[in-house]
Amino acid sequence: MIGIFDSGVGGMTVAHAVEKALPGFDLVYFGDLARTPYGSKSPDTIRRYTQQNIDFLISKGAQLIIIACNSAASVTTEEMLSGYTLPIFDVITPAVQRVLSMVGKSDSKSKVGIIGTRATVKSGIYSRKIEAAAPHCRVIAQECPLLVPLVEEGWLDKRETKMIVRRYLHPLRTLQIDALVLGCTHYPLLKKLIQPRIGNRVKIIDSSEEVSASVQSYLEAHPTLKNSLSQNGGNRFYVSDITEAALATARKIFGRRIDLLKT
Amino acid sequence: MIGIFDSGVGGMTVAHAVEKALPGFDLVYFGDLARTPYGSKSPDTIRRYTQQNIDFLISKGAQLIIIACNSAASVTTEEMLSGYTLPIFDVITPAVQRVLSMVGKSDSKSKVGIIGTRATVKSGIYSRKIEAAAPHCRVIAQECPLLVPLVEEGWLDKRETKMIVRRYLHPLRTLQIDALVLGCTHYPLLKKLIQPRIGNRVKIIDSSEEVSASVQSYLEAHPTLKNSLSQNGGNRFYVSDITEAALATARKIFGRRIDLLKT
Repeated sequence: MIGIFDSGVGGMTVAHAVEKALPGFDLVYFGDLARTPYGSKSPDTIRRYTQQNIDFLISKGAQLIIIACNSAASVTTEEMLSGYTLPIFDVITPAVQRVLSMVGKSDSKSKVGIIGTRATVKSGIYSRKIEAAAPHCRVIAQECPLLVPLVEEGWLDKRETKMIVRRYLHPLRTLQIDALVLGCTHYPLLKKLIQPRIGNRVKIIDSSEEVSASVQSYLEAHPTLKNSLSQNGGNRFYVSDITEAALATARKIFGRRIDLLKT
Repeated sequence: MIGIFDSGVGGMTVAHAVEKALPGFDLVYFGDLARTPYGSKSPDTIRRYTQQNIDFLISKGAQLIIIACNSAASVTTEEMLSGYTLPIFDVITPAVQRVLSMVGKSDSKSKVGIIGTRATVKSGIYSRKIEAAAPHCRVIAQECPLLVPLVEEGWLDKRETKMIVRRYLHPLRTLQIDALVLGCTHYPLLKKLIQPRIGNRVKIIDSSEEVSASVQSYLEAHPTLKNSLSQNGGNRFYVSDITEAALATARKIFGRRIDLLKT
């Protein structure tokens, strides 16, 4: 099975993208709703939770794992993952690769904006990875801690949400960035609000879509693994806590009712 | 020692009120920052955390405990507390008593508004307690799930916060309530925004102040316990995670630097 985890239900945007890219393959999802959100917690705490979540997915039969939470991915270290033999994907690497393929090796300066939680932005991971491979590229990261609660409340089209999005994006707009990475799996739900406020000429990179494309390519290149993945039409969504708001957001993401299983 | 816990740093408004009401008495505080917030989680999960937090405070020498989190207090049952021999206070009971003393036994209808997290409002505890003792009183509760994240971000005077406060208070204002209970320990930090938006004639009841007054009266009536409480000038603030935002909010509440100890 393909294992996916997030601090809550935001990572379901990744699960939904994987479902579309790899129809028929079984998914096992874990949303840590009893401890959500991760983005405002410390790196040590997030690392501890990440390790527990990976172990949980393996115990449920995952043969490949996607860390569908930018906050978790941003503090995960190679050392942490070195003990695992299964492939582990995260939402950050494919988004960075997409940025690099866009800015190319041009001599002209490109400006790339990143929006994410406080944990993701403070980690500096996007800037480090992009600037290491493309030194001519300038990366500007903006933390947007209120967007996750706004999305979880379902305030996707409220005036206050538009104002807060505009406030957060203002510095990036002033700098006239060329591309904007949605560095949190909740943000695709706000894409329609973000595009006009950052400017229509700015290319938006959605880390959920990038990681599902990346997993798809990997499986094409590794047919033995691909053929061993189960295809019984049985996606399972585990959560450490069940709330009505989570059920509503899951329904919004998938466009259908999602049964949540309490761990 | 006097033990106090909350899901995060909001309960420090209670600790600060207790410090002023009972100067010199040692406090031991616990803020569950690794799992904050509680208000959007399920009653079962919040109950489990509450029990763990009470046990932690007892292990640190608490002789009296204050549940300084409305979400935790709203789902706590008598059965849960029946095993403990030390006195346990919560933020809800004293606020309810204040409401009852205000509305009196008048035949005229009083209307009381309650604002709180989703968990607190869904529990219906304020309505049940007030209406049981004062059937002529009408209680209207409004959940305000975005106020905790806004306070934790320090957005105490931003335009968006004012708009969101106005939006949440609108139904209560239309009903012309007589009193408003701040049913979350974060909300005293927004009192200046709330008063003009609910109307200056509406009496605001702050559960943090009520519970500290209630503990003070209890100790006056129980001098043996009062005399046995330590007074070594050593307040300790434990947290399950340390973040800069928490340090900043703690400083805002106390008006001085607070050292947080990681459990």
